[in-house]
Amino acid sequence: MGYPDTFEGFQVNSHDNWSTFKKQEYKPKTFDDNDIDVKIDACGICGSDVHTITGGWGGAPLPITVGHEVIGKVVKAGSKVSTCKVGDRVGVGAQVWACLKCNICKSDNENYCPHQIDTYGADYPDGTISQGGFASHIRVHEYFAFPIPESIPDTLAAPMMCAGITTYSPLKRAGTGPGKKVAIVGIGGLGHFAILWAAALGAEVYALSHTADKEEDAKALGAKHFINTTEKDWAKPYAFTFDFILNCADATQKFNMSDYLSTLKVNCKFHNVGLPDEPLPELKAQDFAPNGCYIGASHLGSRPEMLEMLKLATDKQLKPIIQTLPISEQTCKEGVEKVHTNEVRYRFTLTDFDKAFPDRP
Amino acid sequence: MGYPDTFEGFQVNSHDNWSTFKKQEYKPKTFDDNDIDVKIDACGICGSDVHTITGGWGGAPLPITVGHEVIGKVVKAGSKVSTCKVGDRVGVGAQVWACLKCNICKSDNENYCPHQIDTYGADYPDGTISQGGFASHIRVHEYFAFPIPESIPDTLAAPMMCAGITTYSPLKRAGTGPGKKVAIVGIGGLGHFAILWAAALGAEVYALSHTADKEEDAKALGAKHFINTTEKDWAKPYAFTFDFILNCADATQKFNMSDYLSTLKVNCKFHNVGLPDEPLPELKAQDFAPNGCYIGASHLGSRPEMLEMLKLATDKQLKPIIQTLPISEQTCKEGVEKVHTNEVRYRFTLTDFDKAFPDRP
Repeated sequence: MGYPDTFEGFQVNSHDNWSTFKKQEYKPKTFDDNDIDVKIDACGICGSDVHTITGGWGGAPLPITVGHEVIGKVVKAGSKVSTCKVGDRVGVGAQVWACLKCNICKSDNENYCPHQIDTYGADYPDGTISQGGFASHIRVHEYFAFPIPESIPDTLAAPMMCAGITTYSPLKRAGTGPGKKVAIVGIGGLGHFAILWAAALGAEVYALSHTADKEEDAKALGAKHFINTTEKDWAKPYAFTFDFILNCADATQKFNMSDYLSTLKVNCKFHNVGLPDEPLPELKAQDFAPNGCYIGASHLGSRPEMLEMLKLATDKQLKPIIQTLPISEQTCKEGVEKVHTNEVRYRFTLTDFDKAFPDRP
Repeated sequence: MGYPDTFEGFQVNSHDNWSTFKKQEYKPKTFDDNDIDVKIDACGICGSDVHTITGGWGGAPLPITVGHEVIGKVVKAGSKVSTCKVGDRVGVGAQVWACLKCNICKSDNENYCPHQIDTYGADYPDGTISQGGFASHIRVHEYFAFPIPESIPDTLAAPMMCAGITTYSPLKRAGTGPGKKVAIVGIGGLGHFAILWAAALGAEVYALSHTADKEEDAKALGAKHFINTTEKDWAKPYAFTFDFILNCADATQKFNMSDYLSTLKVNCKFHNVGLPDEPLPELKAQDFAPNGCYIGASHLGSRPEMLEMLKLATDKQLKPIIQTLPISEQTCKEGVEKVHTNEVRYRFTLTDFDKAFPDRP
């Protein structure tokens, strides 16, 4: 077999051995008229990949190919594809399909379409299960493949496809811009993007971290202020200060939520994009009453937001901080383990797919 | 002693005997230039009164006079008072002071002023503790005394001072109006006001209750639809339906939150004004991700919102459903016990203060 009948990917076969990857073949979904096949050149390693293979978010269908920060070239395009063509460089994020017909999709909220299909581990109507980007190829509806501006290299574009849009969308929807004070909590893969975007959008950015030695990086990325949240009473000077808090941490269960909520201006929001395995700390309705604040979360972003984000990155020459790993069974293992133990600064991008898949067309 | 040196009120002396009221004398705060004294004619019984005297929200300073839905006449006005005069009929809600100088106050958010003083059980700078409206008189800063339009009788105006503004403010801030679908959860003292306001503001109102026999009242108040939340899968037909949910229930700890959150449109809010003793059900950040929604709460409303609400009630001749009790030790007991057991439809207003306090000037 082989492409186009089968794809090859580095798969995890068991939650017990969640960091053991094996190069395996599998059949992609049926090719539809709006589908494209992308030959992958780079893929970021996302916290979601780890939550999925460990089973932390609940069991996943195994074997599974994770990876949803994909950059590659279109090698096949369905008869109805109009947004890209064979040879184009495109990116694919954490979503590969939506109905594009419902009111939600029609209002540029296809990332909330009730019929959406995730990039990996989700059921396609034809019975196959979607598979991600630690792989030779990916098949995806064209609406979820985004043209990548020439000035952004594969290695930097890859993590924008999930970490990038996941932080950009809520910042944008919160009206982040000049005159706004925005707190970014947790300076990791997500948080470092959030600082980049919020500063580029013109906000005054406060980086909040329990890791004091991230201050330099946070300021280089655009933060004006750094708050060490391990310090006693850190929140007191910031009562009623922030127009928006974007929580990118993967350890919210350990937070004293009242401290964080107290730093919000009246009626403003504490917004989660870090999605830990554990629940939020216990909350009472009255915890929100002192400033009439809110807590919530979001899921990815829309195609228009993705294109807008890529334009912002190009216009302002924004550069995330990434480390590269040439993809192999061993580097997949190393990568997910270091994401799990929080040893990456700030994102891994897997590269050298041509070497790992030498026989692919 | 006696007025103006002392006020008389029906006080609770112990959390163990939380429904035992005794008519007792106490000293009010020092009279300041912006203060007024109000001779009370009516006072609503609020859920907060019960949470306070039972100690459910934490211990209160005892003895305490509860009641923060006060209507009466100004009998004394400080030298700097400009918003009302002796003889005027005014209402007082759940707040009696704010600094009126900070940015929060200056942005018409004095209900979130960090220096605010609650109507009862709060410390005044002079060392006295604020006391509420089950009493002969109340002393209050003029900013927190509101002129009551002539067309609204005491008995109906009283519960507007807390239940009214507590529901009006978040509905208004959420942009409730024509074209919006608003869900009101819990049809009690708060919820029945919420239906009145939301309908009067032009929204399409859905009343949600676990008490099927409240349907008729809910519709009479202005709800177009009634949803019985004890029915299996009640939420399914309403996925992505509501622009705003105002939760007025005092039993949120029993809710399946995912059901409620699933009925919100993308990025919309589940807003709590019912503040149970118990915490919210366990929540994960990912519970908010399917529609990018939020949960939060609010505290009362601003003076401009209070005046606007009273005007709306007058213009549209809105009438809450209330039951009256002539104030006495016995009726205070009966009232708070029936609020506690949810036997009131939908609000008690204590009346006949002249009989209970025959000697007051």
